[in-house]
Amino acid sequence: MKINPPFVEKVLCAFIREELGKFNYTKAILGLSGGLDSSVCAFLAAKALGPKNVIAIILPYKDTFDEDVSDARAVARRLGIRSRVIDIAPMVDAYFSRYPSQDKVRIGNKMARERMSILYDFSAREHALLLGTSNKTELLIGYGTIHGDMACAINPLGDLYKTQIRELAAHLKIPARILKKKPSAGLWPGQTDEGEIGLTYGEIDGILFELVDKRKSPQDVITAGFAKDAVEKIITLIKNSEFKRKMPPIAKISSRSVGHDFLYPYDRNR
Amino acid sequence: MKINPPFVEKVLCAFIREELGKFNYTKAILGLSGGLDSSVCAFLAAKALGPKNVIAIILPYKDTFDEDVSDARAVARRLGIRSRVIDIAPMVDAYFSRYPSQDKVRIGNKMARERMSILYDFSAREHALLLGTSNKTELLIGYGTIHGDMACAINPLGDLYKTQIRELAAHLKIPARILKKKPSAGLWPGQTDEGEIGLTYGEIDGILFELVDKRKSPQDVITAGFAKDAVEKIITLIKNSEFKRKMPPIAKISSRSVGHDFLYPYDRNR
Repeated sequence: MKINPPFVEKVLCAFIREELGKFNYTKAILGLSGGLDSSVCAFLAAKALGPKNVIAIILPYKDTFDEDVSDARAVARRLGIRSRVIDIAPMVDAYFSRYPSQDKVRIGNKMARERMSILYDFSAREHALLLGTSNKTELLIGYGTIHGDMACAINPLGDLYKTQIRELAAHLKIPARILKKKPSAGLWPGQTDEGEIGLTYGEIDGILFELVDKRKSPQDVITAGFAKDAVEKIITLIKNSEFKRKMPPIAKISSRSVGHDFLYPYDRNR
Repeated sequence: MKINPPFVEKVLCAFIREELGKFNYTKAILGLSGGLDSSVCAFLAAKALGPKNVIAIILPYKDTFDEDVSDARAVARRLGIRSRVIDIAPMVDAYFSRYPSQDKVRIGNKMARERMSILYDFSAREHALLLGTSNKTELLIGYGTIHGDMACAINPLGDLYKTQIRELAAHLKIPARILKKKPSAGLWPGQTDEGEIGLTYGEIDGILFELVDKRKSPQDVITAGFAKDAVEKIITLIKNSEFKRKMPPIAKISSRSVGHDFLYPYDRNR
């Protein structure tokens, strides 16, 4: 579970540079929330590409997360990258005023997809490749919105657990305010990931590491000291979110089908 | 290139039923445009699940495509499935009034993503699985919006070329008006796919079939009688759209990574 932060920094900066090169981009764009993951991603992108080649879009809903907005602005200032604040409320309200919902998760998903849609539009406007900020914990337990915050062109952080990102963040000298903040998907004020999931990131990452990285059986993970309920919950979350980590299944009819046996890597000519 | 329409109908209806079962859904939802592909998908879903279990959402921008809306309504009536019209203009206009653009493709992409976002929201409201309607031609040449019309839970049509879908549509007795309509992504009035791509679907599908299904070299496809320019254009389109057919690349750090070597099928327990 321990990482070597200087090495990881080097690998991820190289990844960002190489993938941009393959896609013929020199600039990167990302959504900056004021939270840990997107701040780490912005720090890495600024190191990899130079601050002039990184654009941050800050996407609050009205003034619900004013502190996060000012933290995000502080990251952009500190790095010397361009930033822009876009309030998603006019688009989101135009929808829910006509099709009301009290469901917090559905409202959060619509917001996440509006942010994605704006980020892709600005990616095209600026000819800047969209960097993803989903970490390994979120990807494995499906704690994110498909076609929302999980959508991106490339993801530098997807193989690091939340606790490992915190280690990398400390090495990168991310502002202390952000390092100390309770992780939140920002779905509603006061929401915290750990409160919603019902487990701490220490527990979640510990269990995931045993199950996924060390390929232990559920029984062995329980024997190693993790609570049975927690292990079973994590396994259920992994299974139920499988669809978020895959392209949609296509009915196979022909001898060579997209997603089945037509699978060239996009960089096969390099 | 010839298909056996009754057999394909049977396979695709079974696919819809089986995949819904795996996800524990009994209902399906889809965006109905009044065009060929979504009409075929609606016919198949109604046969597979019964009309009461299929919901069609018709998503025009203002009155720009009134004829398509009435064609879509006619399909829903004919099948006896529930339908609902949602104008995407309030949300799309809320965005472009603040961040104007003259770029037709960018505007079209924002619209496609707004439709996706609404379809996913109604998928959750109705507990109905979202069916995709991208065909093999579109998937291979990337003629669609990533996280827009290409987004879905399952795709029954993704292994059929446009010309094969037309054959299936005739067998399914899709209304003649829809069968005869010029294919259009509906990005702007008067837009046709063939006009925008610069090749007919007969040419595109012919070339794709030689390259992809028959695995011929570009030179052999040209020798077989297809224009050099057209073959080269199609190859470029396939390569440039690779990213739309794949999950985003994740920087590999650990011994077991999402998208690299953590790849369980979602139905592994069945």
